[in-house]
Amino acid sequence: MSKIMAINAGSSSLKFQLFEMPSENVLTKGLVERIGLKDSIFTISVNGEKKTEITDIPDHAVAVKMLVDKLLSEGIIKSYDEITGVGHRVVHGGEKFNDSVLVTDETLAEIEALSDLAPLHNPANVVGIKAFQEILPSIPAVAVFDTAFHQTMPEQSFLYSLPYEYYEKYGMRKYGFHGTSHKYVSERAAELLGRPVEQLRLISCHLGNGASIAAIEGGKSIDTSMGFTPLAGVAMGTRSGNIDPALIPYIMEKTGKDANEVLQVLNKESGLLGISGLSSDLRDLIQQADEGNDRARVALEVFSGRIHKYIGSYAARMSGVDAIIFTAGIGENSAVMRERILRGLEFMGVYCDPSLNNTMGEEAFLSYPHSPVKVMVIPTNEEVMIARDVVRLSN
Amino acid sequence: MSKIMAINAGSSSLKFQLFEMPSENVLTKGLVERIGLKDSIFTISVNGEKKTEITDIPDHAVAVKMLVDKLLSEGIIKSYDEITGVGHRVVHGGEKFNDSVLVTDETLAEIEALSDLAPLHNPANVVGIKAFQEILPSIPAVAVFDTAFHQTMPEQSFLYSLPYEYYEKYGMRKYGFHGTSHKYVSERAAELLGRPVEQLRLISCHLGNGASIAAIEGGKSIDTSMGFTPLAGVAMGTRSGNIDPALIPYIMEKTGKDANEVLQVLNKESGLLGISGLSSDLRDLIQQADEGNDRARVALEVFSGRIHKYIGSYAARMSGVDAIIFTAGIGENSAVMRERILRGLEFMGVYCDPSLNNTMGEEAFLSYPHSPVKVMVIPTNEEVMIARDVVRLSN
Repeated sequence: MSKIMAINAGSSSLKFQLFEMPSENVLTKGLVERIGLKDSIFTISVNGEKKTEITDIPDHAVAVKMLVDKLLSEGIIKSYDEITGVGHRVVHGGEKFNDSVLVTDETLAEIEALSDLAPLHNPANVVGIKAFQEILPSIPAVAVFDTAFHQTMPEQSFLYSLPYEYYEKYGMRKYGFHGTSHKYVSERAAELLGRPVEQLRLISCHLGNGASIAAIEGGKSIDTSMGFTPLAGVAMGTRSGNIDPALIPYIMEKTGKDANEVLQVLNKESGLLGISGLSSDLRDLIQQADEGNDRARVALEVFSGRIHKYIGSYAARMSGVDAIIFTAGIGENSAVMRERILRGLEFMGVYCDPSLNNTMGEEAFLSYPHSPVKVMVIPTNEEVMIARDVVRLSN
Repeated sequence: MSKIMAINAGSSSLKFQLFEMPSENVLTKGLVERIGLKDSIFTISVNGEKKTEITDIPDHAVAVKMLVDKLLSEGIIKSYDEITGVGHRVVHGGEKFNDSVLVTDETLAEIEALSDLAPLHNPANVVGIKAFQEILPSIPAVAVFDTAFHQTMPEQSFLYSLPYEYYEKYGMRKYGFHGTSHKYVSERAAELLGRPVEQLRLISCHLGNGASIAAIEGGKSIDTSMGFTPLAGVAMGTRSGNIDPALIPYIMEKTGKDANEVLQVLNKESGLLGISGLSSDLRDLIQQADEGNDRARVALEVFSGRIHKYIGSYAARMSGVDAIIFTAGIGENSAVMRERILRGLEFMGVYCDPSLNNTMGEEAFLSYPHSPVKVMVIPTNEEVMIARDVVRLSN
């Protein structure tokens, strides 16, 4: 038995979840926010009860120290050395990492070197890793990459139609993200279907604030909608997804913004928020559309329509599909969106029972038993994947 | 009986085809190149024989004068007034034109005003229109827009997930191109299938140097792969098609190019040429790939793979498809590419007979008679569509 910490560090935040392995029981979880700012917020769940403390937490190392001390004072651990490993979510593993990896001086340097590809994320992930090294220097750390699962994509999928030297010199290619989630739900789908994942063609729809679709053949990602960055693919809460690339110089010319300002618009002011002018939250838009707001209605149509088309394209990509999976906030909880996304896929063998679609946040089949293509809701669990990889790589 | 001229004017060129209507017989056709440059080239086909003349042609009006004089001297017409109408291809009709239109001072001004959306094309198209007005001032002229057929697209298809004001203020939306071609082949497909176009769901693949796919439901375009400009969609000879929009600032940063220079790269140095580093011509790449060139092989896979995926996505868009159409240079002539694009679509009812795929440049069915989805090759004919619209609108 061992206790494994799964960590997701942002520039001013630290999400944690402590697992008992191999049982995979969650002993506690929580979140530190506003690190480095005044009135930082420390939240931890103890026996199902949320405890919050507001205090100044100057950096991630202090946050980690506070976390392990809290684990002791709450009686969740009796000594530091009960924690036998820590796993860190790292956004970008480039072409270097096609699997999780034990953190060494060398691998940490490589993760830092990849910051050029994920300037907002990798540096924060590294800060999280270093904070644990400082406070718990003797326990092994494992880095788990959002991109790793997609490294099985063939050139046909990952190469852009750009001058080839842009790929060779600058690493411009499709990497894909949400890999840990797509991997988790694809493995879980195989279990629920009672078939080896090696024999399955799956389309995984991770629909949250960020959204990506993956084509998973024989347990391997062979295509995904996000690209060089998480901006690409379907329309999201505030992200544009794919647009005509010629629009960028045009937006620059018309608005006087520079390229990075336009990129900000595409990341923060587009998607559902941009079209509707109201909200990036689907629930708000569903309500507004019901009340007759036309732009809310269109935003929803664009959102569901593009995902619907991706499902068709990935079915074509794999010459058919055995199961379609919905996961993450919207995928797990929005019956309305799932219904719209799936409507009209009967031609490719997707037959859903409307009475099964009311499920929220639980594993469920939405398809009729006779449907050639199964449709499933599977709540994602990136944290348990991190914990599993720590066990696998640190023994 | 009337003789109608169909014109496609570029900045230094003028393509013409003279029809006898309503028989639609082609009386002659030809091309004027290098207008405004030294040693302009005038080529005209007379009784199936090509005649070429090299001389300085300073502007489009002189080219038109030379053309009509040549028609007289070759005995194709006996007097100017046998030409009862002229139709001009115009690239961009914006949201203003959802059909061809009789050219008046007002419509001509509107076409000029749309030059902002098609700075390389509309001004040249206008020059062509004015040249005919100067030389043949009394005959009616009709403008036929590449974008008009796609104006039936619903908001769900044409709106980008951008701030809505970009659409309202600047017209940033999907327009789509090759509309005249998509319309022609969809109507012709209905004839060949012996069914009203209103009852059909068609996917039209216009694959030439530029390539676009259209979803045509009930005779109306409801989605298409090109976008705000003809850069978007699938990979083409030298065009990138869709890429992660975040790549543009990244390319700018890495190469020191400005946004318009990057746009040039995406238009002129990307696509098949960019990936292969060899050629934008599929035939070259097929040969090179056969000889073992790896990047030629990948370029072909990217090209066919993205079209294959569009077919899946547009089948999903229409909840199924009745027929898939191939047209334009590659679509009409490349059995290799057609085979690769179609391979693995059996799951959605596409069954092709390999022995039917050897057709080049002729109307043909590629699918087995029992295939639920029909697959057809239909050589496009934008010129005859122009001539028909002149007859329809000038009477």
